[in-house]
Amino acid sequence: MPSTPTSQPLVPTSRPASRGLPLAGRTDQLVGSVIDSSTSLLHQQTHDIVRFAMGSPAAEAVPTAILSKLAETALGPESADAYDYAATEGDPPLREALLAALAGTSDATTADRLFLTSGGMQGLDLAGKLFIDPGDLVVVESPTYTNGSATALSYQAELLEAPVDAEGLDVEALSALVQRAGRVPKVIYTIPTFQNPSGTTLSLARRQRLLELARQWGSVVVDDDPYGMLRFEGDALPTLHELADGDPLVFSVRTFSKIIAPGLRVGWVDADPSLQPLLINAKQAMDTCTNLPMQRLVTEFLAGGHLEGLLAANREEYRRRKHAMQDALTQHLGDIARWTNPEGGFFLWVTLTNGVDTQELFEVALAEGVAFIPGPAFSPSGRFHDALRLCFASTAPERIREGVVRLRRAIDRLATRPDRAPESDLG
Amino acid sequence: MPSTPTSQPLVPTSRPASRGLPLAGRTDQLVGSVIDSSTSLLHQQTHDIVRFAMGSPAAEAVPTAILSKLAETALGPESADAYDYAATEGDPPLREALLAALAGTSDATTADRLFLTSGGMQGLDLAGKLFIDPGDLVVVESPTYTNGSATALSYQAELLEAPVDAEGLDVEALSALVQRAGRVPKVIYTIPTFQNPSGTTLSLARRQRLLELARQWGSVVVDDDPYGMLRFEGDALPTLHELADGDPLVFSVRTFSKIIAPGLRVGWVDADPSLQPLLINAKQAMDTCTNLPMQRLVTEFLAGGHLEGLLAANREEYRRRKHAMQDALTQHLGDIARWTNPEGGFFLWVTLTNGVDTQELFEVALAEGVAFIPGPAFSPSGRFHDALRLCFASTAPERIREGVVRLRRAIDRLATRPDRAPESDLG
Repeated sequence: MPSTPTSQPLVPTSRPASRGLPLAGRTDQLVGSVIDSSTSLLHQQTHDIVRFAMGSPAAEAVPTAILSKLAETALGPESADAYDYAATEGDPPLREALLAALAGTSDATTADRLFLTSGGMQGLDLAGKLFIDPGDLVVVESPTYTNGSATALSYQAELLEAPVDAEGLDVEALSALVQRAGRVPKVIYTIPTFQNPSGTTLSLARRQRLLELARQWGSVVVDDDPYGMLRFEGDALPTLHELADGDPLVFSVRTFSKIIAPGLRVGWVDADPSLQPLLINAKQAMDTCTNLPMQRLVTEFLAGGHLEGLLAANREEYRRRKHAMQDALTQHLGDIARWTNPEGGFFLWVTLTNGVDTQELFEVALAEGVAFIPGPAFSPSGRFHDALRLCFASTAPERIREGVVRLRRAIDRLATRPDRAPESDLG
Repeated sequence: MPSTPTSQPLVPTSRPASRGLPLAGRTDQLVGSVIDSSTSLLHQQTHDIVRFAMGSPAAEAVPTAILSKLAETALGPESADAYDYAATEGDPPLREALLAALAGTSDATTADRLFLTSGGMQGLDLAGKLFIDPGDLVVVESPTYTNGSATALSYQAELLEAPVDAEGLDVEALSALVQRAGRVPKVIYTIPTFQNPSGTTLSLARRQRLLELARQWGSVVVDDDPYGMLRFEGDALPTLHELADGDPLVFSVRTFSKIIAPGLRVGWVDADPSLQPLLINAKQAMDTCTNLPMQRLVTEFLAGGHLEGLLAANREEYRRRKHAMQDALTQHLGDIARWTNPEGGFFLWVTLTNGVDTQELFEVALAEGVAFIPGPAFSPSGRFHDALRLCFASTAPERIREGVVRLRRAIDRLATRPDRAPESDLG
């Protein structure tokens, strides 16, 4: 073998990696999910634990009986074609059933805008693929959904964390941050409704202002809304898509994970029709198509008219659970915490005012028999050591009360631990 | 019928204008699949067509009856947890069943190397995510599987097309091409066994030499092998993974799509254990996890011992079909073509020697009632206008003969068409 010429850089220049493999530069920014590692620790526990950590629907909220009954037909011996490849943009019958299901809602759309995905997460991955160049500025909410910001990071985005308050993303604060950054964001990633993790909802005035700013900056607004159909209180607000009124800047990401079942891995994107060819090409290079048996199952579920009844039942139950949690918090944490008041979705955001670090608290709480996700999991820069996310949706009311009692016990244990510096004195 | 353009316009070469949306640079390289656009044209036809185009298993080769029976348990009312999120690296029972199924084969592996994916395509996407920086040189076979090269392009790779002959990738020609390029490839993308589209298999000597070159260059070898378990003739060869003997440079991509059913969207990656944390982080930002109901279904299928019987039956049937196709080609195209002799898999590669352009031929053949994929679909630079891919696997032997007769009729029609330049005179 003749030696290779040396004038050109013959050795790949990316960072040297584990065992000499030539990793791509972006692997520096492939961050893990703290939610995932927390829940994996959680799964290892064998004692009784009240689980406020996960963002899954309650087991009893998943219509297993209906799904397994429908599977007999959708995946049955008469449905051989259900095991074949699907059209990249989604199985036509599901596209039709979904258009029908959305008609009359603020997410109503048209066939040329609809694109089916392998869960909501793939919608976010597609947004990254289509819009984010390395070094682009991407706005994320602070706190935000970690896997959403992780996807932006996997495209080597530079993140700008903008604060969230009781009315959702603080758009004036965002405007000031962008001024200070001296450059406009390429993408604004928002979860406007029953936000994960805070449970807050972006007000109508702020929705309008956000679109105004995005237009001014030439930014794409990635509107991630897995929980919007789970409103159990208050009045529905128009989606950013509806408010944009034909302006192509809103890229909506939706999923059946929270409203039917996460295991389906079926979601959709609603985006400007000009993006369809790119979405098709991008998805072909990601996973060819979304699994057809589950698309058929969702089609049967929608066509059979099961969604409305399921949503009505689950909304009512989630409302009960939210109030059970708020009542328990008032009773047991009222003196050392404040929390948000979600009108739907799965989550409450609790801020401790006594200086306890929620990351330290995590393992103590686990030992006491209650699980949550510590605040820093929801901030790429690790903010919110005084906060935690509680999922009220997956636990029955009686258990919720027990869980909050255990949480208080864990906080007290940690606050009085001899090795602990008196942080509250520093505040 | 509209006339087909003659250069390479089936692949969109530049990004569509998108109403002022700030697209990422890589969207210039998000190319569509010609296979997909051809089959979509094919799906629009209503007359009788012998379908040699698709790369799906035969409908009768998919064990629908067994799958739907197993689905009653795997997705049944007792299996509520099947509709939940799965572990990112794959459902533990499927990981175990797969390890057991691979034990004793050349793909035998260990739990720390195994990573379940949403089909084989996601394995390729993960390889791109982990290894390809914009501008990196990536070797692809010429011809190659279009969606594989499309994935490398979606990571803004620069492609180096290396020739394939009857023994697979011509590794000495590759070595010379790399010398000429003046830089080493970051990734070598190969389909070593029953290659798509050529049907050829990389010889043992070439496998060893390829690994030698890759080691010397510091390249990762992405070994895409969807068809390896479908050998119906000749002797099995060791996989690149086995030959690499612990060297981390081989990244193996596998799938159940061709051996059980494509709709499952379940595949796996076998890679150096040092890559597991990156694979987990990358997949979380792509689609969270692979759909759990289909993972459970595959688990039941493997654990029930159904795979061996299915493979044995399908191998025998595919062997019959290959011979039916070769016999028909000898009888009807022997004077104007040559073709490969696959020992397994789905495809034959036919080279016409009479100057007919297979891209022009496509629509004429469709009108005659036979479908195939034109050669240029398998080359990012649009080579192989004299060649075409035929899938023998999905058509019964009698129909195969009829299809080849129709193909000859189409070739003759085109060869004698008055508007056609006498290209064969130029050769």
